[in-house]
Amino acid sequence: MELAELQELMDRTYGERDRERGMTATVAWLAEETGELARAVRKGQREEQLHELGDVLAWLASLANQLGLSLEDAAHRYSHGCPRCSATPCRCPGDASH
Amino acid sequence: MELAELQELMDRTYGERDRERGMTATVAWLAEETGELARAVRKGQREEQLHELGDVLAWLASLANQLGLSLEDAAHRYSHGCPRCSATPCRCPGDASH
Repeated sequence: MELAELQELMDRTYGERDRERGMTATVAWLAEETGELARAVRKGQREEQLHELGDVLAWLASLANQLGLSLEDAAHRYSHGCPRCSATPCRCPGDASH
Repeated sequence: MELAELQELMDRTYGERDRERGMTATVAWLAEETGELARAVRKGQREEQLHELGDVLAWLASLANQLGLSLEDAAHRYSHGCPRCSATPCRCPGDASH
């Protein structure tokens, strides 16, 4: 699935509701789902981890829609190696990456 | 960009470093970047919001790589409308979505 396709899908499914609730609510949901993903990584099964990865991705796409920004453009930052050191693999000193 | 392509890109650029630091560090980075995105939504400019969207997406892809899971499979949960009510647009009662 293309990143743009994901955004369109989220817009069709949740766009109107998301806009009604507003951006702050979307940020809150994204934070909540990130927490659920963290818990699933620590003690969840594979199926739960996949579920939570999907939820975080979905809220991230919803947030991008509300901001009027493209995840494709956002990902472009990484399309030519590390945006800091420009190398692939990254050769940034220490723990600086990503 | 395809979700699978994003994961491959992150694996080539950061895979080795991510595996060295371990999954817990990746979860911590994802949480940190989600916080930076929340701040950028509240008071950042468009360019900063795009930057932070990219960083969250990048860490999410890195985490999926470390879990051995596919973001494509994760997104599939949303590919036939709302996973709760199965409708497009979502018709879940109240504030249940996504």
